[in-house]
Amino acid sequence: MSLLDYFKISEVSSASLARERLQILVAHERSSRNQPSYLPQLQKELLEVIRRHINVEQDAISVHFEQNDIHETLEVNIILPEPQSKRF
Amino acid sequence: MSLLDYFKISEVSSASLARERLQILVAHERSSRNQPSYLPQLQKELLEVIRRHINVEQDAISVHFEQNDIHETLEVNIILPEPQSKRF
Repeated sequence: MSLLDYFKISEVSSASLARERLQILVAHERSSRNQPSYLPQLQKELLEVIRRHINVEQDAISVHFEQNDIHETLEVNIILPEPQSKRF
Repeated sequence: MSLLDYFKISEVSSASLARERLQILVAHERSSRNQPSYLPQLQKELLEVIRRHINVEQDAISVHFEQNDIHETLEVNIILPEPQSKRF
């Protein structure tokens, strides 16, 4: 399954909203559970990158973190402002 | 299907390698195809964030870009160096 397929699955629930979205997913696959987690720091810096370019309100950002023995995944969903706002 | 499930699917092919990986996926869901694409600029800045924290060789990074009418997706796969290298 390609990454694009993954987003096609999630598209169904959001299609009716007709809002632009930016979704950032970060996965760290560790060789052992003793390795340090650096997703929290990465999350902070990713949001700084986004905010430098897009005037996005705090409540337009949702963050979800999942973890098991091997994977840590960070999911950031952003509802983008209307096109007249500052962009890349 | 959760994001973690997506990574579990891809885990099968990479489990035997026992290498640590960092995967970054960015999806821009546009309300129309006339909206500008800013994933190329975002890709550049994301890689700068990673390189500030991890000593990763250029050939350890692979980038894949997919596009259809609604979605643009950027996938960055990074084979992480051994644990003694600089980290977050």
